[in-house]
Amino acid sequence: MMHIERLCLIGVGLIGGSWARALRDAGAVGEIIGCGRTEASLQRAVELGVIDRYECDPAQAVLGADMVVLGVPLGGMRGVLAAIRETLAPHAIITDVGSAKGSVVADAEAVFGRVPPRFVPGHPIAGTEKSGVEASFKELFRHRRVILTPVADTDPDAVATVRALWEVAGAEVVAMDVEHHDEVLAATSHLPHVLAYGLVDTLAHWDDNREIFQYAAGGFRDFTRIASSDPRMWRDICLANREALLTAMKRYITDLNSLLESVEQADGERLEAVFDNAKQARDHFISLLEQ
Amino acid sequence: MMHIERLCLIGVGLIGGSWARALRDAGAVGEIIGCGRTEASLQRAVELGVIDRYECDPAQAVLGADMVVLGVPLGGMRGVLAAIRETLAPHAIITDVGSAKGSVVADAEAVFGRVPPRFVPGHPIAGTEKSGVEASFKELFRHRRVILTPVADTDPDAVATVRALWEVAGAEVVAMDVEHHDEVLAATSHLPHVLAYGLVDTLAHWDDNREIFQYAAGGFRDFTRIASSDPRMWRDICLANREALLTAMKRYITDLNSLLESVEQADGERLEAVFDNAKQARDHFISLLEQ
Ligand SMILES: NC(=O)c1ccc[n+]([C@@H]2O[C@H](COP(=O)([O-])OP(=O)(O)OC[C@H]3O[C@@H](n4cnc5c(N)ncnc54)[C@H](OP(=O)(O)O)[C@@H]3O)[C@@H](O)[C@H]2O)c1
Ligand SMILES: NC(=O)c1ccc[n+]([C@@H]2O[C@H](COP(=O)([O-])OP(=O)(O)OC[C@H]3O[C@@H](n4cnc5c(N)ncnc54)[C@H](OP(=O)(O)O)[C@@H]3O)[C@@H](O)[C@H]2O)c1
Repeated sequence: MMHIERLCLIGVGLIGGSWARALRDAGAVGEIIGCGRTEASLQRAVELGVIDRYECDPAQAVLGADMVVLGVPLGGMRGVLAAIRETLAPHAIITDVGSAKGSVVADAEAVFGRVPPRFVPGHPIAGTEKSGVEASFKELFRHRRVILTPVADTDPDAVATVRALWEVAGAEVVAMDVEHHDEVLAATSHLPHVLAYGLVDTLAHWDDNREIFQYAAGGFRDFTRIASSDPRMWRDICLANREALLTAMKRYITDLNSLLESVEQADGERLEAVFDNAKQARDHFISLLEQ
Repeated sequence: MMHIERLCLIGVGLIGGSWARALRDAGAVGEIIGCGRTEASLQRAVELGVIDRYECDPAQAVLGADMVVLGVPLGGMRGVLAAIRETLAPHAIITDVGSAKGSVVADAEAVFGRVPPRFVPGHPIAGTEKSGVEASFKELFRHRRVILTPVADTDPDAVATVRALWEVAGAEVVAMDVEHHDEVLAATSHLPHVLAYGLVDTLAHWDDNREIFQYAAGGFRDFTRIASSDPRMWRDICLANREALLTAMKRYITDLNSLLESVEQADGERLEAVFDNAKQARDHFISLLEQ
């Protein structure tokens, strides 16, 4: 099995913390050094056994690390890369878990002049609406997909190592183009989050005392769960994946306007056809998930 | 406790069947006569103990009933009311469970000339994405709200009876104007369903082989759960509550266009403010639900 002597995790939150827990649980790592901005949460991470020790300065944290995982929000990636540039060991593999990949690749290019061959951009398709190390758990990636988006001259060995470490956590790893990743995730994740946040915001402004929420049923609770996600993380994602998100939003708004027209014209046949197609597609998707 | 000697349930599906189960379980009814279009599902309802016997003709089914519950889709209400008009006992109380109330009131007016004083329009705010009597269960309404929308000359005794029968099922009953009901439900239920159906339909057309759904995570599953609801029932709801739904859709589309603009302008501050407001409102709503 893959073994990493010293792993440095910068951003010990839900995603980074969960991966660290899974790797430790499997005995795939020797030592895990955490790094973040808030000492209290790093101390908590030590207490929880997620990391062995921590450094508050990223440049210090990566010293001697064989592998560096960037678990910070997308808006923090460039700063962290700049901070570790000088002290990173030449043989160290870097990977990240950011929800958009084009922006991280651009950050690496800006900091290093090009994407370092041992930098493997990655994104686990797993999460909850919670955040922080307290919410992390080692099973988070089990039976989930992780998308790696190596670029043309990414070192295949580095890709193989990152892949193996995700497999240790129970994930199924697939590789994809950066652009394709960002387009697919804009559609299946970033757009739904914007729609859910938007809906709850619309309703919250509907009446001042929010009486309206009292009459929302279980379906609404599920539908809006993702609107309880971390606002700053999602602001970062929207900015980082702006182009692809804009395309997805425009497409959706066009379709929604056409649904509006069907309602306006009381076109029951068309409404039923759209609803039916959606139900079939979702039922198909659920059966895929359950395979 | 309230006791109904003979209850006639027209439309023995998820909602009607669940109420019947709860009433029987509590010993609140003597006999339950079912009625529907498909004999096989009525037979199944007898096997499941949801109803005692059935009639296929609504006019026959309501003979001698003290109470008639309309559990059919909104598009079926008017036809059923017309069918039972002549044979309904004068003392019988009628209620319905339809998801929109203005259309049912209009149906009653069209059939009876006015809303009969012993007709109490109602709507339980509970459901699942499943349908049919097989999916019914007696706990469905426990700790859920039921909205009754009596009109000016609805008999207060009839309202009290219907209220008591919902309370027997564990629900909390509130009264509301027909118009207010339709506006609130358009916002909190009908709009979300249209948005979810619309999103899945948009994605299903995104690429022909639906590869896109493979990269959808748990959040997407919850977000789109309501898009697995019965397309015909939701077509009926959209048509029945057309005006209020149009208002809600337009308001949402306006807000979504303004979010689109914020993404276009990379206005992170505004995005975060909207997301933050939504998260706070949802967390508040969840705490209400959990009270
Ligand atoms: N949550 C999801 O559903 C999900 C799914 C897939 C991928 N992702 C991606 O995973 C990454 C982390 O998300 P998460 O949900 O794990 O968030 P999280 O729980 O908030 O964790 C982020 C961690 O990074 C630290 N941090 C923030 N800014 C930093 C900086 N500039 N330098 C060093 N540390 C910093 C935070 O701690 P301090 O504030 O104490 O520094 C926190 O511990 C994001 O890039 C996100 O796009 C999230
Ligand atoms: N599902 C929800 O989440 C929910 C929540 C609150 C309120 N509601 C309302 O509850 C009502 C029923 O919904 P449901 O979810 O219970 O649907 P359902 O499970 O499909 O039940 C509807 C039943 O009505 C019967 N039916 C349909 N058309 C009929 C007609 N013209 N005459 C006689 N019987 C007829 C159907 O059986 P046959 O096809 O065999 O006739 C079926 O058993 C709808 O008005 C809906 O708006 C639904």
